[in-house]
Amino acid sequence: MIYPFLLPDMKAEFDLRLSKVREAMASGDCDALLISSTTNIFYLSGCVFRGYVLITPDRDPVWFMVAPSVAPENTTGLFNIHKPEMIPAWMEEHGYPAPQRPGLEFDDLLYSDIERLKSLFPGVEIKNASKMMRQARMIKTEYEVDKIREDGMHQARAYSQVTHCFEPGMTDLELQIEVERVLRLEGCLGYLRAAGSRMELNLGSVISGDNADVASPYDFAMGGAGVDPSLPVGADGKTIKPGSTVMLDMNGGFNGYQSDMTRTWYLESVSPLAVKAHECSRAILRELEKIALPGTPISTLYNRAVEMAEAEGLREYFMGHRNKAKFIGHGIGIELNEQPVVMERNHQPLQKNMTIALEPKFVIPHIGAVGVENTYRVGDDGLENLTVFPEELQEL
Amino acid sequence: MIYPFLLPDMKAEFDLRLSKVREAMASGDCDALLISSTTNIFYLSGCVFRGYVLITPDRDPVWFMVAPSVAPENTTGLFNIHKPEMIPAWMEEHGYPAPQRPGLEFDDLLYSDIERLKSLFPGVEIKNASKMMRQARMIKTEYEVDKIREDGMHQARAYSQVTHCFEPGMTDLELQIEVERVLRLEGCLGYLRAAGSRMELNLGSVISGDNADVASPYDFAMGGAGVDPSLPVGADGKTIKPGSTVMLDMNGGFNGYQSDMTRTWYLESVSPLAVKAHECSRAILRELEKIALPGTPISTLYNRAVEMAEAEGLREYFMGHRNKAKFIGHGIGIELNEQPVVMERNHQPLQKNMTIALEPKFVIPHIGAVGVENTYRVGDDGLENLTVFPEELQEL
Repeated sequence: MIYPFLLPDMKAEFDLRLSKVREAMASGDCDALLISSTTNIFYLSGCVFRGYVLITPDRDPVWFMVAPSVAPENTTGLFNIHKPEMIPAWMEEHGYPAPQRPGLEFDDLLYSDIERLKSLFPGVEIKNASKMMRQARMIKTEYEVDKIREDGMHQARAYSQVTHCFEPGMTDLELQIEVERVLRLEGCLGYLRAAGSRMELNLGSVISGDNADVASPYDFAMGGAGVDPSLPVGADGKTIKPGSTVMLDMNGGFNGYQSDMTRTWYLESVSPLAVKAHECSRAILRELEKIALPGTPISTLYNRAVEMAEAEGLREYFMGHRNKAKFIGHGIGIELNEQPVVMERNHQPLQKNMTIALEPKFVIPHIGAVGVENTYRVGDDGLENLTVFPEELQEL
Repeated sequence: MIYPFLLPDMKAEFDLRLSKVREAMASGDCDALLISSTTNIFYLSGCVFRGYVLITPDRDPVWFMVAPSVAPENTTGLFNIHKPEMIPAWMEEHGYPAPQRPGLEFDDLLYSDIERLKSLFPGVEIKNASKMMRQARMIKTEYEVDKIREDGMHQARAYSQVTHCFEPGMTDLELQIEVERVLRLEGCLGYLRAAGSRMELNLGSVISGDNADVASPYDFAMGGAGVDPSLPVGADGKTIKPGSTVMLDMNGGFNGYQSDMTRTWYLESVSPLAVKAHECSRAILRELEKIALPGTPISTLYNRAVEMAEAEGLREYFMGHRNKAKFIGHGIGIELNEQPVVMERNHQPLQKNMTIALEPKFVIPHIGAVGVENTYRVGDDGLENLTVFPEELQEL
């Protein structure tokens, strides 16, 4: 196993991340973080191993490896342990003061895992490390932005083959399966890392026709019935009908980071209402690309999008028809659903190098969903699109 | 949304599951379960919705739906709520006594989710509902066994196309991608439901050559480096070499339940040692199929398998070479890793209608992994194989 945080040319990158985490610890009034979720281990280390990372305000981080992960010999800061219960004694032995306000990942780990880790720090108040890690991860480093841009290029290459994947008479699911194959051959890792417990999905979502108006119990912007009651989301396995749209929102994870990109196709013909709504989605993106500057309140993006949909008389279709999503976008990075959430009540200001997916979408009854989703980096002059690919409604 | 537990012809099935859950509650000294994990909602309802199921010892279960999931009108036992905090008032209003020993899913839900739900039951001891649900789910109903058998048939049909998927010069990953497509076209849902936080995988694992001897931080029996440090498991993207084996352990989830089946192929030729180990795996399965009767201690299966590997002089390769898995099998059902775990220290007796995947595998350095995995139902006369497919080492 290669540990990327040990590579000399990656040192500056991981030092930068560490400084961001320490800033979040300071604002969270926390004097030690013990990290073990896959997502945050990957953020701090550039790889996934079994074990724990200990972060303190002023001493070097410590990496504790649990078998089968192994600390390379003679490497500063890496130690093999059998179980987390060995960490307090290790800290005492190495002169680390006992944490008074340690942080554990309340929103990333199972209850039983946290209860076990809490017993390492008896009698002190435990803070929520998940919040601090999310805050640190919200603003990306240049390296991270490059990774997401790389994802976007791979995803665009896969999307360029969608029309070749289609054959007349196909179901939405059959089309999805061919696109999945193209994505995988392009390097998609095929695993969707997402926060929380309400995100279950295979390699993405393809929805068409009436299925676009079916609610799903998950936290995705769009729904769909799925093909089995055990996974009620996305494609429903029905033949794609002439006159309907086909929205593809597929997995963009190629390197530990993710891009999120939606494009819409149609079969044979499409109603003027669907065209109008699709063009409204594009107009919303053009507008948001301009007004989304560092300092702009995030709610401004949401409100402006709603206003523009309203002005076109499309409010009833915006972000769903029978069921409406309460957000038009979300942060993205290692996880599909990072901070910030682009919704009405989020008044925090945009910051440079946030990466956000904006997805102003419409559900047109009996036709399907339309709209575009891009992943952006917040820059000094507005948004930089990391998912460059033609946005027009395209014929299958 | 169809709610399968409301269908008249499914009533007996869900009543049976309910009685098993109540038995587990009684043995866990618990007077109410509030269930909300996807896995357990699916077990109790036959579908996934957003909300909660309340189980008490003697009153009808109550289904609380949270939008976008909706309770059908005029349906006994289903109620719409906005948030779980409404449940205690609902219970009081409907004459339910306040639970004194309620159970929540400590091993299935995030810490923050459990903390929120704990506040519904102030001042009482909260029990671990995950343990009780696992106990109830460990013994399958006939309906569940049929679902797993159905999975096995689909999986076998997909595996029958593996040799057609292969082309000379392919990498392990390229072969895997073609098999994924076949599985998906066969109806595989493409989402791996697993318990715990240490199981990340796309649609399965293909390992060949040296990669079989690379440890992975996850809890799978076999490892593999993967192709990216963010997901270090399975295929490593190297060309499949003549003389090496290719072990496929792919996703068998087609209907909310899963079968687990491993078969092994080889390219051009294979060493006598690999053949011997593969035949030892098959001999172990034949032996375990006979001795695994209701009442047999589970550790007996593990010990007998180790003994047989030892007798053939294959101990050093058994269940891994440089790293060894500590189990030779596991329960399987809605989740890939259910109870019981077939390991040395598990002395509980086998019970009729447990479903277990047995996977006596060997890692032969520089050649690859060999062996067979089948999913079985424990019957009165031994094991019934639910994954019927030729077991011989097959040429690609």
